[in-house]
Amino acid sequence: MALKDAKSGLRNEAGIAAVLGILKQSFGERFQTGESFRAQHAHTTTYIPAQLPDGVLFAETADDVKAAVRVCAEHKVPLIGFGTGSSLEGQVNAPNGGISIDFSRMNRVLEVNAEDLDCTVEPGITREELNVYLRDTGLFFPIDPGANASIGGMASTRASGTNAVRYGTMKDNVLSVTAVTANGEEVRTARRARKSSAGYDMTRLFVGSEGTLGILTSVTLRLQGIPQKIGGGVCAFPTIKAACDAVIMTIQMGIPVARIELLDALQIKCCNAYSNLDYEETPTLFLEFHGTDETVALQSQQFAEIATECGGGEFLWTVNAEERAKLWKARHNAYWASRALAPELAALSTDVCVPISRLADCITETQADIEANGLLAMIVGHAGDGNFHVLVLFDDKTSEGISAVENFVARLNARALEMDGTCTGEHGIGQGKMSFLEQELGGTVDLMRQVKRSLDPDNIFNPGKIFHLG
Amino acid sequence: MALKDAKSGLRNEAGIAAVLGILKQSFGERFQTGESFRAQHAHTTTYIPAQLPDGVLFAETADDVKAAVRVCAEHKVPLIGFGTGSSLEGQVNAPNGGISIDFSRMNRVLEVNAEDLDCTVEPGITREELNVYLRDTGLFFPIDPGANASIGGMASTRASGTNAVRYGTMKDNVLSVTAVTANGEEVRTARRARKSSAGYDMTRLFVGSEGTLGILTSVTLRLQGIPQKIGGGVCAFPTIKAACDAVIMTIQMGIPVARIELLDALQIKCCNAYSNLDYEETPTLFLEFHGTDETVALQSQQFAEIATECGGGEFLWTVNAEERAKLWKARHNAYWASRALAPELAALSTDVCVPISRLADCITETQADIEANGLLAMIVGHAGDGNFHVLVLFDDKTSEGISAVENFVARLNARALEMDGTCTGEHGIGQGKMSFLEQELGGTVDLMRQVKRSLDPDNIFNPGKIFHLG
Repeated sequence: MALKDAKSGLRNEAGIAAVLGILKQSFGERFQTGESFRAQHAHTTTYIPAQLPDGVLFAETADDVKAAVRVCAEHKVPLIGFGTGSSLEGQVNAPNGGISIDFSRMNRVLEVNAEDLDCTVEPGITREELNVYLRDTGLFFPIDPGANASIGGMASTRASGTNAVRYGTMKDNVLSVTAVTANGEEVRTARRARKSSAGYDMTRLFVGSEGTLGILTSVTLRLQGIPQKIGGGVCAFPTIKAACDAVIMTIQMGIPVARIELLDALQIKCCNAYSNLDYEETPTLFLEFHGTDETVALQSQQFAEIATECGGGEFLWTVNAEERAKLWKARHNAYWASRALAPELAALSTDVCVPISRLADCITETQADIEANGLLAMIVGHAGDGNFHVLVLFDDKTSEGISAVENFVARLNARALEMDGTCTGEHGIGQGKMSFLEQELGGTVDLMRQVKRSLDPDNIFNPGKIFHLG
Repeated sequence: MALKDAKSGLRNEAGIAAVLGILKQSFGERFQTGESFRAQHAHTTTYIPAQLPDGVLFAETADDVKAAVRVCAEHKVPLIGFGTGSSLEGQVNAPNGGISIDFSRMNRVLEVNAEDLDCTVEPGITREELNVYLRDTGLFFPIDPGANASIGGMASTRASGTNAVRYGTMKDNVLSVTAVTANGEEVRTARRARKSSAGYDMTRLFVGSEGTLGILTSVTLRLQGIPQKIGGGVCAFPTIKAACDAVIMTIQMGIPVARIELLDALQIKCCNAYSNLDYEETPTLFLEFHGTDETVALQSQQFAEIATECGGGEFLWTVNAEERAKLWKARHNAYWASRALAPELAALSTDVCVPISRLADCITETQADIEANGLLAMIVGHAGDGNFHVLVLFDDKTSEGISAVENFVARLNARALEMDGTCTGEHGIGQGKMSFLEQELGGTVDLMRQVKRSLDPDNIFNPGKIFHLG
């Protein structure tokens, strides 16, 4: 789909040439057009073909962004924000060419308000950099998508991850953003109050818009107190259904688990092989609790009772950091353990999310599909949210390999939609899931198009993502 | 401002006449044009002048709403949703005339998914009706704005209230909506998954849009388990500052208070007089904890220590429902206690929200303002969110009375903005706060206008609210 855009001559060659000249003159060494810079700023994480920008601007200030947007707006040339390039659906590709704005030098913490549990950062800071910075304040930023992504990128894809079950997603943790819009002006979407009913929720409109409505220049985040105590534990279950029942009871009882992750039997098998472990090779839940000695113990005990009731094995848990790391080792190494199973194959991570009452059905039907179609694929789920990833290992050098995985993804997404779920819990739509978005939301996608046209009439911000403008 | 719209001849008389004829024919007795029906469907809660719709449709199904939108769209006639009429900023007024859609007969619960902790309801159901319906499921819908508002109205103003500190606002508790948009079609903004990164967050765009982008026909809500145990307590403080310090420490320590409400000394005095109580007449916090026997006791004990550290008095608390009602009586009766102080005067409730580090400053400066200007006004705050309401008692029969309160509100809102707060924590903008929204968000309001124009090009949905289209 994205390639079609590129092929169908949507490149504005004259505009691009003009912009390249102007930006080179304005920014000198901070604007790069060499092949290697451009290749590093295209999509690299999956088999979606890379589509290179024509130049890369290493922005250092919001004024740099404003200047770039004004030049590009005047010449109707695309701008694509770039954090760390860890997005999975082609979000950073440049199907019509244009300018990639690299935020790695805009990674400052602008303000920390410890009493208010918030901070304001530039978009290029990564979540790990932020948490290192915050350590002395007793606060942390909880959202953890796995990759050490940039905050701007995480906001743009509405990222979440393992602890969304406790702390929510980027939707819940961004208080406001500043963004440069199509007229080259910077707006701020909200004040710093914890809640507001002041007009349309433009903050939430920017969060998850994948850079298609403007370029973020700062993000104000909610922070959390570092828990006094962290408990971690592991529990094996005879079936996916039994594990999911335990998850549902845990959520229903309001036990504030910080993480509750599900690995299927094949994933556990990979982990055993990779890290020389001896977990029982059966569906397994990995839990984390945040609180005090008392509350962590209480929650662990409550979960142990639930696990027993659902037919699970012994719940092994600890508040000792080293032992916790050991218990969680399989979860931490899951991705690399899977890749090690067949290092010669490529990997693709799917991302459906369903109501948790349907999670067991969705996973077991998907496992049957994997088996019936002879695929090599294992499952890791953010079970408390109903979100799971199938990591499919496949041959991306042959069209048969690619169509097998594409057909599988189509069936998986259809299955999730059938269960009133979504084709993406946290990765976003990008170029890879546009057709599924239409299936999922129908007429609502037309509303999105109307919003896009109104805020970005010349389609300069990350064109060819989320939906085709038609 | 709103009156200006009405006066400036924006009424589409020919269109209105046509629509009245068609709707009467289609809906018979369910479409009313009598003065008393129309008066009941205009703004009645404050001194903002009532502006009556031309007719009232008692919708019974989404198809009724679609039919009405199609007729009104064809004739470019305004449509204004009406829940219970409890909004405070003129949201239900009809400055250009048009049709009020009354949702009192669309109050069904369409679906409860207990395992997923969600339900789908028609917009006309009130939060109390919903909670009565849910009682047997062990679940409840937490958002409590005080008034027994409709869910559709609460979604439209992004309502919250006393327990937002624990459960969030409508922004956090609406999973999706269905809405009839300007083309007369019904769209659904999201599936039922707990999280999604599927394109723009159209759910959050509708939540808080005050009926200006379409007419809601259903709302899917997140629910919570009814807590096993509810604890309630009261604690007096020597100063607003001391009380706010205790709130900040409570939030910073991550104690999951369900409610933490602040009443100022004058408010307590009114409550004592009204209910024959003997609270110490000093700033006082009212708290509620949700959990189990253990966690409620733990949290209460933690708060008691914080209160002592901040110079507060003894923290009286209980898990006995009757005693809790007694301890909380002053908070429950606060509004009527204030009104009883001067029953001949009108009352206006302000709604600023500031970062909690500034709450004490904002309240004490506001108290000084009240005193310096000889106003009669008391303060109740949702302190955990930094949101507080000044209830100003004033003479709405004289222009001096009205301008005194309007000037006070302008100074209060300017003070909150100065502190990086918002002019509305939960009441919305409506007609009353349009100028403050401009002060608060500047260029972002232009983005809102662009969104409005794109989704409602003929401005048929609740015109003259949130902003002027200019």
